[in-house]
Amino acid sequence: MVRLKLVLAYDGAGFCGWQYQKGARTVQDELERAASRITGRAVRVHGAGRTDSGVHALGQVAHLDVPASLAHIPWARALNGLLPRDLSVVSAGPVGPDFHARFDARSKTYSYTLWTEPEYVYPQRRGYVWACGPLDLAAMDAAAAHFPGRRDFKAFQNAGTEVRSTVRTVMDLSRSPGWFGPEVVWRITADGFLKQMARNIVGCLVACGKGKVPPDSVRSLLDEKDRTLAPGTAPARGLCLERVDYGETALDRDQVGP
Amino acid sequence: MVRLKLVLAYDGAGFCGWQYQKGARTVQDELERAASRITGRAVRVHGAGRTDSGVHALGQVAHLDVPASLAHIPWARALNGLLPRDLSVVSAGPVGPDFHARFDARSKTYSYTLWTEPEYVYPQRRGYVWACGPLDLAAMDAAAAHFPGRRDFKAFQNAGTEVRSTVRTVMDLSRSPGWFGPEVVWRITADGFLKQMARNIVGCLVACGKGKVPPDSVRSLLDEKDRTLAPGTAPARGLCLERVDYGETALDRDQVGP
Repeated sequence: MVRLKLVLAYDGAGFCGWQYQKGARTVQDELERAASRITGRAVRVHGAGRTDSGVHALGQVAHLDVPASLAHIPWARALNGLLPRDLSVVSAGPVGPDFHARFDARSKTYSYTLWTEPEYVYPQRRGYVWACGPLDLAAMDAAAAHFPGRRDFKAFQNAGTEVRSTVRTVMDLSRSPGWFGPEVVWRITADGFLKQMARNIVGCLVACGKGKVPPDSVRSLLDEKDRTLAPGTAPARGLCLERVDYGETALDRDQVGP
Repeated sequence: MVRLKLVLAYDGAGFCGWQYQKGARTVQDELERAASRITGRAVRVHGAGRTDSGVHALGQVAHLDVPASLAHIPWARALNGLLPRDLSVVSAGPVGPDFHARFDARSKTYSYTLWTEPEYVYPQRRGYVWACGPLDLAAMDAAAAHFPGRRDFKAFQNAGTEVRSTVRTVMDLSRSPGWFGPEVVWRITADGFLKQMARNIVGCLVACGKGKVPPDSVRSLLDEKDRTLAPGTAPARGLCLERVDYGETALDRDQVGP
């Protein structure tokens, strides 16, 4: 068997998230079905992270094992010929047998797009933004400054997934203009994300930008580690998994090939 | 009665174009129905131009007349509360009684987005691009240089609409990067567009970018004025009416108010 690394883009609106769930349409399930049609046998696909229902991706990463005889077919083209219109393989290629999309990930970067015009939303952008209205960007920047670093993000974790530790490192949280004038994009890079952590951080930034929460209270929210004290979760549709980065070790293994 | 000017954005995928057609869903019809619900009487909406079925808009302009008693309600908000999700009013306000969205338009600007990656399309962008694969941009630039100016664009007009003259002035035809790496955007500004002229010009640029037509043949295509000799029409989904510009006279009339 040869291990393949896939980079994936999907429109999250039509998926109940990444992970297989009986009776629900998921990204993992669509990929496994397409890959199985090519290999003629059951295939398990492992993602770098489980995106929630409705969350988009431009750079999700996954791995799967295929028979050596099929290692060098044009996998991206073959899968894209079978996949539905809302799921695309951006690239596919062999990696070393130890590469693991989830365990080898050093960091992930999500973008979150806010729409700040109060009166209208461009229909073309409706499925990809949170139309939260005008924002005090200086207040958001002040709030954002409290997040980077190695911290306990328990107050920004929603219930539902057991984890050994709620400590994560946020490497970067920065704001940039969007493609359209009324858009503001927040990008967050961390070594791992607790359940809905990115959306909870954005929910907190927006609460600060709306003047509902003072930016300096982020410090005490982090210290108190109580989800019930923190602002609400931002909607899924504004979130996009942009990239997953692998350390040099994993990259070296990539280059070893099959 | 008071005349209102509307700026409109829509996702063209769900519309059979701008203009009212019996039994078809059109932008004009949706707007007239929403406006009529507010005024309590039949309302006619006049657009700056008829976009084709499937063509998008971020800055279409229209005008309509409403009773003076309703001139100062928040029209954008009122209409957006009634319009479907794929059609939004960006702005709405009173203009002088002689303002005409179509006849006063000095120029219109369309964008056309091409997707140049051969293996995949981001699902989020599928409805807004023509996935035409790799392009020779230098060849396209050379071809594009032939279009600006006052010319007879008969070879770039599709059949179906009678016009007195096929002479139009292209003020600008320029290329810029898109939001996503594999995107190339062509923007074309002209004092008027013949039927499918923007899509026929892009179709010609892409034929040049694919090496199917030499860039210098654009000159003879324009000279020969024969649609059957020119390359095919680009698909509707890549096209977007970005803005309609009005001359100073019309702007002055805007400022006169009701």
